[in-house]
Amino acid sequence: MGGDYAPGAIVQGALWAQTEFGVNLTLVGDEELIGNELKRAGKTGEGVHIHHCSQMVRMDESPLKALRKKKDSSIMAAFDLVKKGKAQAVVSAGNSGATISAAILILGKIKGVERPALAGIFPGAKGSVVLIDVGANVDTRARQLFDFGIMGDIFARVLLGIGNPKVGLLNIGQEGSKGNEKVRIAHDLFQRGPFDFVGNVEGRDIFSGDVQVIVCDGFVGNVALKLSEGMAETIGVMLEREMSGQLTSKIGFWLCRKAFRKFKRHLDYAEYGGAPVLGIKGVAIVCHGSSTPKAIKNAIGTARDFVNNHAQERLEEGIAAI
Amino acid sequence: MGGDYAPGAIVQGALWAQTEFGVNLTLVGDEELIGNELKRAGKTGEGVHIHHCSQMVRMDESPLKALRKKKDSSIMAAFDLVKKGKAQAVVSAGNSGATISAAILILGKIKGVERPALAGIFPGAKGSVVLIDVGANVDTRARQLFDFGIMGDIFARVLLGIGNPKVGLLNIGQEGSKGNEKVRIAHDLFQRGPFDFVGNVEGRDIFSGDVQVIVCDGFVGNVALKLSEGMAETIGVMLEREMSGQLTSKIGFWLCRKAFRKFKRHLDYAEYGGAPVLGIKGVAIVCHGSSTPKAIKNAIGTARDFVNNHAQERLEEGIAAI
Repeated sequence: MGGDYAPGAIVQGALWAQTEFGVNLTLVGDEELIGNELKRAGKTGEGVHIHHCSQMVRMDESPLKALRKKKDSSIMAAFDLVKKGKAQAVVSAGNSGATISAAILILGKIKGVERPALAGIFPGAKGSVVLIDVGANVDTRARQLFDFGIMGDIFARVLLGIGNPKVGLLNIGQEGSKGNEKVRIAHDLFQRGPFDFVGNVEGRDIFSGDVQVIVCDGFVGNVALKLSEGMAETIGVMLEREMSGQLTSKIGFWLCRKAFRKFKRHLDYAEYGGAPVLGIKGVAIVCHGSSTPKAIKNAIGTARDFVNNHAQERLEEGIAAI
Repeated sequence: MGGDYAPGAIVQGALWAQTEFGVNLTLVGDEELIGNELKRAGKTGEGVHIHHCSQMVRMDESPLKALRKKKDSSIMAAFDLVKKGKAQAVVSAGNSGATISAAILILGKIKGVERPALAGIFPGAKGSVVLIDVGANVDTRARQLFDFGIMGDIFARVLLGIGNPKVGLLNIGQEGSKGNEKVRIAHDLFQRGPFDFVGNVEGRDIFSGDVQVIVCDGFVGNVALKLSEGMAETIGVMLEREMSGQLTSKIGFWLCRKAFRKFKRHLDYAEYGGAPVLGIKGVAIVCHGSSTPKAIKNAIGTARDFVNNHAQERLEEGIAAI
């Protein structure tokens, strides 16, 4: 029920995932609205269940207040299904604060993790880069950043198949003495971490791909994620505007349109399949509010990979080893 | 003497600015090294003075320690010239922390400003966007963010000629209740500000250009600035790589190369002429360590505009009016 184009885009994306990945779907929310979307898609219902709920958390609601008040909200019901073993993962494009809070309330945190975090995936020049946290927490303490480093390292290995990820700490300069107090303390902790710590990295490293895991506070990470999305969009628009000026440019642009489309796809965040919540006892994928059917489909693919690769168990082992 | 390509790129950029803007130059640093660069450029010395210094602050030095120890450093000497009325502005591509600290130590802060800030200029889709602070401070308090809002508003009016700039507060959601405590308090303060406050904005708004002044802590702003620079570079590389694949793409790319160059220039931070330090009693422009001659030339242009438009006086008036 959550997201700017719900339930239409959600149902379409989910059905697409069913076809592509062969997953079983439970669509949680208003029975009638979802039923109408299924009918519109010409779907009779095989492998698709509807779990009816009378309430939903709106995008602008305060997460904790909404969860206390709305006991029959779709996000609470979805995690209840996981808790009861009737589903293996939750994918949501709704209120992300409510999704993370419901995950923690109902499934609980992995032992030893103070704060679960959102792992965002960036299209670096030399391959994918994991930025953790992209918005689950603000005002993170140094010790919590250290946990993010451990979880980001494991995530990059298990889900992205990166053999020995380099881990960096996002700061405003390379020297260990730079930045605010929190990051300076974290820098010391990271040097004793069970991962390949390369030291401080800067904003530009998020796109270079030289470092595969970059750790930061959720406020900074969320700004970085949204800035990148906005910039990718703006660049696409600007480039097309320039190219459609003179006739030679127009012809030129027409000739290289295939290459340009490939380039745009590389920067398209819909391709990246949502941000997993790391550090909970279960699987939850948070999608952008403005998710298209393709973004939802890919997020369900990420959820499936998370389950099939036993990522949660690997995270539990990693944290327990500290 | 500061920056990755000093003193060569600095001297070339300064001479370029002299030709283009007709400014008088004082080059502060090692007499012999600078003299060699001038000779190499075939410059006899008219309108160009060298002010010799025996020391310089390295890029990796702790700013305050270095300034205490190196009394004859080029950055201290440069601000001394302004203090004595022998120069009207300082432009530096050296250690930015040392530049800002030396400015505050020698020239002092504008009355009422707790913390001077760096104003970065971003190439938004609908025009320039001022992001303040891009790295002078980490751990800024709400009241200090409020000062940044006042200074950013005046800067956008006076230097960028924007009639009635919209001012936004960078946060991780649009609602006033979002973000960390500092930003929530700042949100309340901003509503009583002497500027057109539009509320919270998100990372993507830095490139939309709908809001012309965006206020944030220097840690977040610095990450945003460097991320944008890195992404612009990466995108240029990726696009050329895609375009040089198939023959039709190659021909197409060749036909629209002029438009592509225009597009790249729009994203080229060298065009943007450095980041002014706002809130000091004088004019200081901080340049990127990797500044090219063109970036230095444009930064000197910004310094000249700052002086000619009496931006410092306008900032003093604006702060005094609160």
